[in-house]
Amino acid sequence: MSAAAWGEALAAVGGTAGSSTTVVSICVFTAVLCLCLVAGHLLEENKWVNESITALIIGCLIGAIIFLLTKGKQSHILRFDEQLFFIYVLPPIIFNAGFQVKKKQFFHNFMTIMSFGVFGVFISVAIVSAGCYWLFPKVGFGELDASDYLALGAIFSSTDTVCTLQVINQDETPRLYSLVFGEGVVNDATAVVLFNAIKNLNISQLKGGVVLKVISDFLYLFATSTILGISIGLSTAYILKALYLGRHSTDREVALMALMAYLSYMLAELLDLSGILTVFFCGIVMSHYAWHNVTANSRITTKHIFATLSFIAETFIFLYVGMDALDIDKWKTSKASFKTSISIFGIIILFVLLGRAAFVFPISILSNNMSGSSERTPITFKHQVVIWWAGLMRGAVSIALAYNQVFGFLTRPLITAMLPRHSRALSRGHSTGSNSPKDDFTMPFFSTDEDASGSGIVLEQAKRSISMLLERPVHTVHIYWRKFDDKFMRPIFGGPQSH
Amino acid sequence: MSAAAWGEALAAVGGTAGSSTTVVSICVFTAVLCLCLVAGHLLEENKWVNESITALIIGCLIGAIIFLLTKGKQSHILRFDEQLFFIYVLPPIIFNAGFQVKKKQFFHNFMTIMSFGVFGVFISVAIVSAGCYWLFPKVGFGELDASDYLALGAIFSSTDTVCTLQVINQDETPRLYSLVFGEGVVNDATAVVLFNAIKNLNISQLKGGVVLKVISDFLYLFATSTILGISIGLSTAYILKALYLGRHSTDREVALMALMAYLSYMLAELLDLSGILTVFFCGIVMSHYAWHNVTANSRITTKHIFATLSFIAETFIFLYVGMDALDIDKWKTSKASFKTSISIFGIIILFVLLGRAAFVFPISILSNNMSGSSERTPITFKHQVVIWWAGLMRGAVSIALAYNQVFGFLTRPLITAMLPRHSRALSRGHSTGSNSPKDDFTMPFFSTDEDASGSGIVLEQAKRSISMLLERPVHTVHIYWRKFDDKFMRPIFGGPQSH
Repeated sequence: MSAAAWGEALAAVGGTAGSSTTVVSICVFTAVLCLCLVAGHLLEENKWVNESITALIIGCLIGAIIFLLTKGKQSHILRFDEQLFFIYVLPPIIFNAGFQVKKKQFFHNFMTIMSFGVFGVFISVAIVSAGCYWLFPKVGFGELDASDYLALGAIFSSTDTVCTLQVINQDETPRLYSLVFGEGVVNDATAVVLFNAIKNLNISQLKGGVVLKVISDFLYLFATSTILGISIGLSTAYILKALYLGRHSTDREVALMALMAYLSYMLAELLDLSGILTVFFCGIVMSHYAWHNVTANSRITTKHIFATLSFIAETFIFLYVGMDALDIDKWKTSKASFKTSISIFGIIILFVLLGRAAFVFPISILSNNMSGSSERTPITFKHQVVIWWAGLMRGAVSIALAYNQVFGFLTRPLITAMLPRHSRALSRGHSTGSNSPKDDFTMPFFSTDEDASGSGIVLEQAKRSISMLLERPVHTVHIYWRKFDDKFMRPIFGGPQSH
Repeated sequence: MSAAAWGEALAAVGGTAGSSTTVVSICVFTAVLCLCLVAGHLLEENKWVNESITALIIGCLIGAIIFLLTKGKQSHILRFDEQLFFIYVLPPIIFNAGFQVKKKQFFHNFMTIMSFGVFGVFISVAIVSAGCYWLFPKVGFGELDASDYLALGAIFSSTDTVCTLQVINQDETPRLYSLVFGEGVVNDATAVVLFNAIKNLNISQLKGGVVLKVISDFLYLFATSTILGISIGLSTAYILKALYLGRHSTDREVALMALMAYLSYMLAELLDLSGILTVFFCGIVMSHYAWHNVTANSRITTKHIFATLSFIAETFIFLYVGMDALDIDKWKTSKASFKTSISIFGIIILFVLLGRAAFVFPISILSNNMSGSSERTPITFKHQVVIWWAGLMRGAVSIALAYNQVFGFLTRPLITAMLPRHSRALSRGHSTGSNSPKDDFTMPFFSTDEDASGSGIVLEQAKRSISMLLERPVHTVHIYWRKFDDKFMRPIFGGPQSH
């Protein structure tokens, strides 16, 4: 037994936490997170600044301080790690979104969300890629090959869920929220499929079959991810209902829900599915069944535990992005001149705006016409503009990623110039854009004529059902779902008793 | 931009969580934790098996399965890392212990706890080190030098807090719990000081001053760690009270409490103090002040959030230790023969038992005599035996550490042979050993004669106070503390209104 080994053992047993740089980083990050919390609270009533912007600004300041203290050697204390981000920070945010989402709103807009999230992305990728392919060489930036342009289109065509959560309020504009947020969630599956397709793409042998292949891949991935999330959510509900863990310990219930939710995300990642979709649907199922099978204290605890985790994770991201803005290495590795950077920045913004416009307005109008006047209030033009504009926010996730890997020189101006202004524009946009925040909820979910038909001519009923399905498809599906839910699902998996 | 860089970026943006081995490990660990939870629930009414033993056994089984699947190459999936343990797993356990500890019990027994935790450890180190120094060469294991023997004594003289929490029930035997657990917490500071002292010790120049230096170091460390913990706890209480964060968001309150608690631990580690002591006192202060300044929902949430985190962390440790028991490398690196291992194991057990006996019984008797008959019920002989025996449990923490670094060949038999039996012996021990679980609470905390003296002769009162202080010191200190608390502390830092 060497003296060195003893020394290590002593240090470890004695409680000294090993590498001191990690300890310093964690200390600074924790302290700054506390600062952001308090600052966010104090600025709550301020219309111009929200929590994410506070975190960004504080991050910038901390970055500047570190930059000065280390005499320009570095500006951030914790190296950003995609693994850290995708394994620990993202899952609680998305799970909480699923857990707290207004399920009726989400499923009533399901077809529109799917159209935005699937066809919209394809349209946008095509426009952004083609636009960049056409204009990049003209500003002297032509070193990319075809698959690079497609990847560029894909990165800038998938919207982000994290930023949406920060700037659009679910209670004030539930429909807008579910549309923009839902698009972001569905996008993730599309992005996984598109990226895999582009990676394996051989441009020289491009055939018409590729598009079909991509669409069938997407449908497969979407279905499997959703089924996995729903299965794990239902298993949790069943375990909680059958065993009644709360009998002995409330903590066991809370721990099981949190661990199973996390398991759903990690299992999806392990199987190369979309973790975001899986954990989102797991959250929806858990809030619909599992949450009703636990004790009252567990209900309060889980509601807040997930919200708090999500809140800390979001603040962490914005803080990090702020801190990263000054990173000197990024500036150095960018070979392009300032003029070229600005041109490229302008080109991308232009085509992302065009690409989004090319699908947001047509799909919204189509959705308004399809659903009929009785079904629900249409997507107003103001809302369409917000959806179009909101998709521009690449959000902290994409920015943080793009930063470290692809083109820091493009996204830096994006943050500093766009993100705060966007958030503000949106904050005002959605408070003026929606005159009646509750107007999406005016339709009763059970039509009275359905229940009133006591006389039992089966054929007549079937006929009416079919005509209803044709006239008001989403509403009818919802009614049948509720019947199925009450009769088969709730007795097995639990749920609110009085309905 | 190389194709490889694109590929990486695509994988990262697309949501693939990087290194797949980490994902596999996390998946297996999360799934097995869920399994342990459910198994623990099902075995709750079983007297012979508790949650920690279930986790140990499941860990062993998983280890065996991995061992077979990898054809004997490895038995554990996640390499144990002291940093992971001390940075992420230990803080929630100790904070929760401080948060949930019965403060009155703890401070009423404060002098006894300090005696156990400080003088007891010194006595025990001396006996264990001397005993090993005397007997180790006689069984053919003489390759250690003097500081190794002292370190050996120190490792086996500090009891462990985690295991205590699992086997002694605070509600059933509050006094026993606070004595054994308190000893473990104070121990940590003693251990840090002792280990540092031994590391810097020059055996050849041993002087009498060393002991004094160690004691003064301990007092300094104890005081600074405690003050740090209390300061952070009070700051949190003050922020929560002054700003009333719950006005806008419950989640912000919960996040602030959790982050500040974690900050206290990390700050202590950064300053080379005892993180365990700091976070423990931070927990006590937060439960006394900060907890009363938050909304009702936050109160329920924080209570369960910390308990759940602590619960998951504990299960994780036992699971890991079980999984590690089969680790083939440990067996190979142990050079000593089986006979020598058994002899050394026997010698250490013998001297640890002797060392503990040498301070537990004298200090208990002294404490019983000092406090006087009116103060509180004495520490019964049965309780003394439990305290003596409980200290033997080196617990998951020391075992996990000792495993990976110092002498795996000694601690392996310790787990398999002792830990389950101990737990069981103790479970039975404390349910038979304390005939009246509530007997420690029979004394009223406010003596009625104190309140009854309305006639105001100041001198008489002062006299009585002094005589009271002499007769019933702890009780009197408690009364003055309550007065001080009500008058100065609670108005600033908050606390329960009706008292």
